[in-house]
Amino acid sequence: MDNDLHKLRHELLQQTVSLAHGNGGRLTRDLVEGIFAFHFGDDLNTTVDAAPLSPVNGELVMTTDGFIVEPLEFPGGSIGSLAVNGTANDLAVMGARPLYLTLNAFIEEGLEIRLLDRLVADAARAAHAAGAAIVAGDTKVLRQGEGSGLYLGMAGVGVRGRTPKLGLEHIRVGDRLLVSGTIGDHGAAVLLARQEFGLTGNLRSDCGCLVGVAMALIDVPGLRFMRDPTRGGLATVAHDILRGTGCGVRLDEQNIPVSEAAKGVCEILGFDPLILPSEGRLVAVVAPAAAERSLAAMQQHGCPDAAIVGSITTESYVTLRTELGERLIEELEHDPLPRIC
Amino acid sequence: MDNDLHKLRHELLQQTVSLAHGNGGRLTRDLVEGIFAFHFGDDLNTTVDAAPLSPVNGELVMTTDGFIVEPLEFPGGSIGSLAVNGTANDLAVMGARPLYLTLNAFIEEGLEIRLLDRLVADAARAAHAAGAAIVAGDTKVLRQGEGSGLYLGMAGVGVRGRTPKLGLEHIRVGDRLLVSGTIGDHGAAVLLARQEFGLTGNLRSDCGCLVGVAMALIDVPGLRFMRDPTRGGLATVAHDILRGTGCGVRLDEQNIPVSEAAKGVCEILGFDPLILPSEGRLVAVVAPAAAERSLAAMQQHGCPDAAIVGSITTESYVTLRTELGERLIEELEHDPLPRIC
Repeated sequence: MDNDLHKLRHELLQQTVSLAHGNGGRLTRDLVEGIFAFHFGDDLNTTVDAAPLSPVNGELVMTTDGFIVEPLEFPGGSIGSLAVNGTANDLAVMGARPLYLTLNAFIEEGLEIRLLDRLVADAARAAHAAGAAIVAGDTKVLRQGEGSGLYLGMAGVGVRGRTPKLGLEHIRVGDRLLVSGTIGDHGAAVLLARQEFGLTGNLRSDCGCLVGVAMALIDVPGLRFMRDPTRGGLATVAHDILRGTGCGVRLDEQNIPVSEAAKGVCEILGFDPLILPSEGRLVAVVAPAAAERSLAAMQQHGCPDAAIVGSITTESYVTLRTELGERLIEELEHDPLPRIC
Repeated sequence: MDNDLHKLRHELLQQTVSLAHGNGGRLTRDLVEGIFAFHFGDDLNTTVDAAPLSPVNGELVMTTDGFIVEPLEFPGGSIGSLAVNGTANDLAVMGARPLYLTLNAFIEEGLEIRLLDRLVADAARAAHAAGAAIVAGDTKVLRQGEGSGLYLGMAGVGVRGRTPKLGLEHIRVGDRLLVSGTIGDHGAAVLLARQEFGLTGNLRSDCGCLVGVAMALIDVPGLRFMRDPTRGGLATVAHDILRGTGCGVRLDEQNIPVSEAAKGVCEILGFDPLILPSEGRLVAVVAPAAAERSLAAMQQHGCPDAAIVGSITTESYVTLRTELGERLIEELEHDPLPRIC
């Protein structure tokens, strides 16, 4: 690091974000160079309005997602790693490798730049882990009281090669539904981190990258559909399947992996783990004959708690088979969980 | 429009955005289908996590920008048209045609859905005019008091073919600097629209699409560099040139087009038009021999007020030649204009 940059960073890290950091002039440039470009490296050319992308072989896919999680840091992740993983995972479940990401930061006046620096560093690390480059960004500063620390918007472009036909339209009755690990840990960890419930625990968010496991699943013939159960949780993915296919989904409660810690949070706060978001889990629908091999692929790619948790039925609703019988899972109507992701 | 959608829209347009519209469940889907997908049409497939892009010939470029303008609607535009034009223009000044856009909406609880609908319709119209499709989006809802109506994040991918070598590194001493029209109208119109100064007037934002004029300029040999003078205005573009090239910029006040209305606002409020943002103007640096032809190209492509306003010098500062002599233009330091774009 050259001396000027070292000095700039030293000064910035003592400060809070001011409105002048958003004016497009010298202080904006200092913030961009000292924090964002410092962590994103040569991938980010701050002197151009748009970043040229290297040629790629394959079909491009594009996605975007917004992030408003509170608090900004939580056990297992932060809004920085969450933004990158959430965006990269949306590409991965479409069968694409994330290549290029862009970041929009809406920063509230008064945010400690030291905290911002940690969050941007988290984003950079997560992008590196996902194999993607953050090639463009923008910062805007909101007056104190017009934001809540930091909101991030992220867009991503990925590439997919010879992909199997993936999509809701390929799902058939009898297909099996798998999850790659315990569900709801992200939601439960964020709720705990808010401390408004007076709870403490060892729960960590599952926030993480699904590119590896998604690419492994694509190699197993019989894959129909993948999705990450983020906002609205596994129950919402099941309803997406119902709506998109007309086929029902039957989940088996005893097979659904839920960590003891998340179970405890849900019991105390009255939440159903089925609606809690995960940010590093994958739901896959596969042909019956592919279920065991897909499960093995998940387990071999860093997902020891993966499980076959349900199947596609001829019924026209989502149900959960429990020890006491079968109950209907309604679509999520109200919002018990603002700012969970 | 089918009956269900008609009914859904009718109901939505009476409502305000609630936290439940952000939960990922039925109400989120209603908002997305009834407002966003309604206006963006078939370009937006709401059943997938990422949108496959059609193959393109040429080099891809990618950009992103955030928008926090207040008020959300102003004479000549809105945050919806501003987001699309701001993003499309960042691609256009790099010599690329915008093709694919993504939209992140951070909506404050309590926003009237009727207003949101107008803003989304503005975005759809602006995208159509720019020749781009909005292919992916996301909505998040902020609790009342944690936002200020609506913030938008937009990313864009464009394509460029045989482009001349564009960039700060191609600028040479003696090159001419052109602007495509009156500067600062956007900034002045937004300030007026806030009504906090008790001023009224007929000023309209210049918010608009630069794709046509940018493509016309590319066809004129001798083009070195293009940029849209948004945040920080023409003065900031001049400083970007100084920093990126080491060459100075001399602007001629008498040649810089400023509307009478914007002049009036600046005089009353004490702003310099050179730092006010434009959102539909282009700054071009061209070889001396290309200046007149570039000016004519601008005039023939909807820019009657285009002008040659300055030149690149051997000096190492930005100056403005006025009737009274030459004065130094400093880089923007503080922030007189929060939430101007």
